[in-house]
Parts: sequence; structure tokens; C-alpha cells
Amino acid sequence: MSRQMVRPGGRSARVQASVHAAVRELAAERGRDALTVPLIAQRAGVTPSTVYRRWGDLQTLLSDVAVERLRPDTTPGDHGALPADLTAWAEQFLDEMASPTGRAYIRDALLGDPDGGNAGRCSAYAAEQIDVILTRATGRGERAPDVETVIDEVVAPLMYRILFRPAGLDAAYAQRLVARALGGA
Amino acid sequence: MSRQMVRPGGRSARVQASVHAAVRELAAERGRDALTVPLIAQRAGVTPSTVYRRWGDLQTLLSDVAVERLRPDTTPGDHGALPADLTAWAEQFLDEMASPTGRAYIRDALLGDPDGGNAGRCSAYAAEQIDVILTRATGRGERAPDVETVIDEVVAPLMYRILFRPAGLDAAYAQRLVARALGGA
Repeated sequence: MSRQMVRPGGRSARVQASVHAAVRELAAERGRDALTVPLIAQRAGVTPSTVYRRWGDLQTLLSDVAVERLRPDTTPGDHGALPADLTAWAEQFLDEMASPTGRAYIRDALLGDPDGGNAGRCSAYAAEQIDVILTRATGRGERAPDVETVIDEVVAPLMYRILFRPAGLDAAYAQRLVARALGGA
Repeated sequence: MSRQMVRPGGRSARVQASVHAAVRELAAERGRDALTVPLIAQRAGVTPSTVYRRWGDLQTLLSDVAVERLRPDTTPGDHGALPADLTAWAEQFLDEMASPTGRAYIRDALLGDPDGGNAGRCSAYAAEQIDVILTRATGRGERAPDVETVIDEVVAPLMYRILFRPAGLDAAYAQRLVARALGGA
């Protein structure tokens, strides 16, 4: 998301959509290291100054694009019970975030983001998905931990190891984290 | 650390020391955004090509400097019992890493680090300190969790929240994480 509020359908929103699309296309065609603001502006059909005014620099633009790509586009699946729901979500989260593309987006989201707003949005996306799962569980009458506990015991270890300590990062590890988090519920 | 092996006392080590010192001095004098390879090389008394040959680019050099700054320079304090030792360590880790300087070093360590080697070293530093604390505890006859459990339950939540979710990140939070990790021991 850009640093300014965007009115859906307005010119501002159209500029954002075309610039984001240009970044994704050019990154796919030429690789991230070939991206420059003039190249992106040309593809998006805007002036470089529009990009600089809106995003400040390339790193901030890449961070905004990354956060958009990290936004979940589906509701967590309903497998009928909390352990199954949270395990499936954690395995999918790990698959997506630990992939080369996922890692690149996480790095971009963190690095062009001096005020931490984009990193905060990534965390909010995970918290929203977990809240859906936990609310569904309590609706079934299941005992459930709170969202922050699942962030601490499942999301944080997965993301920490993706960024800092990737050895042994597999589905079985995600399953153990979920089992430990729910054991405390 | 640089990408190549460095023989202590050799020319390679002297170049690394002078270039790292130049980065620290210039960052303090002019701010990180003013840093350039030619400026750093001039201050270090080497040619820019020496820096490019050794580090590839500025981002990689800043990442190496950051990891050196994040290396602990003291052994964890001995307070006579595992809960006190681990709590004191976690509070200090949080203080250092959550400070503006600490956050900047973490970001640098992650950013100029495509192969993840520097991020891995940051994690190894924490694991080594925790191992000292846990080994001392078992030597006293105390029950202790293993290092990876403390990474998952204390280090990962602290680092995740520093990077993604800083609200409510205080000493009391670090104390709760340690209590929960030791409760399972």
C-alpha cells in the first residue's frame, strides 16, 4: 500500500495499480535487480516524478508491492476442528513464506519500510487469518488460545527460522509448533 | 564477516578491520544514507576496487559490519539460577535488538545477505549464549529445555515482534516468554 490514502477507483488507485503491475511484470521479465524507477514508470505509463512523489524511492515501492503480494486471498479452510484448521494454515503459511518468492517478498516488505508500517501489515494479515480460525473453533465449543499466543508460538518461530535459521524447517516442524500451542489451550 | 576466509593478522584481516572501522566512523559522522563505497574506501585507505572485489557491493559490506556489531562481547551473567539467568539475558537481548541501532543492524544484516549466511550468524550468536546459560543450569542440577526450544519460545517471539509487531514489546513480555519456556522444562 502506498503511504497515502487511496480512494478506490480514483486516479490515485489507478496509478497504484498500474505501477504495481509494472513492477510485477518487469520483475518477472528481467529480474528484480534490473528494476529502476524510470523503467517502471515507462511501463506503467506515468512519469518517474509521479513514482518518486508517491513512493519516495524504489525500495519503498518494492516494499508496498511485496505487502500486496503477501496479503492472503482466501479464508482459512474449515477442516472441522481447530487442530486440523491451524495445522493446515501453518503448513500453507510455511510453504508460501519459505519459498524463494515468499522470502524475497518478506525481505522487500521489511527493507523498504523505515516506519515499520508494511511489516506491521504482514503481521496483521496473519493475525486476521488466525482470528478467523480461533473464532470458528470457539463457535464450535472448542477451547482455543488467543491470537497473540498463536503469533508467539506458531507464526514467530516459523518466520524467525525462515529469516535467520532455516535448517529443519519443514511441515513436521510446523505441526509440532501447532501441537505445542494448542496443548497449552 | 566477509565472504572469504580471513587469516587473523594477515593483510586480508587488516583490510577488513580498516574498512569496517571506516563504515562505523562515517555512519556516525554523516549517517548511513551518506555512505558510498568510494567514501568508505578513501577513509579506510584502500581502493574502491578492493572493496568491490571483497564485498561485491555496499549492501553486503553493511551486512557484514552489522553482524560484527551484533556479535555478543560478553558471556551471559551468572545469577545463580536458570530463571534469573535466562530472564536477564532475554531482557538484555530485547534492549539491544529493539533499540534504533539494533533494528538498523538487524535490517542491514538481513538486507545485504542473499545467501542467508549473516542472518544465520546472528542466530548462531544467540544460540551460543543460550547454550552457555542452559549448560550452566544443568551443571547446577537444574532441569532445562534444549537450545532450539528456547530459540522457538523466547528468541523467535522477541525478534518477530521487533521486526513485525512492536506493540507491547517490553521487559514484562520477555519475562513472560522465559517463564513459559521454563514451565515446559
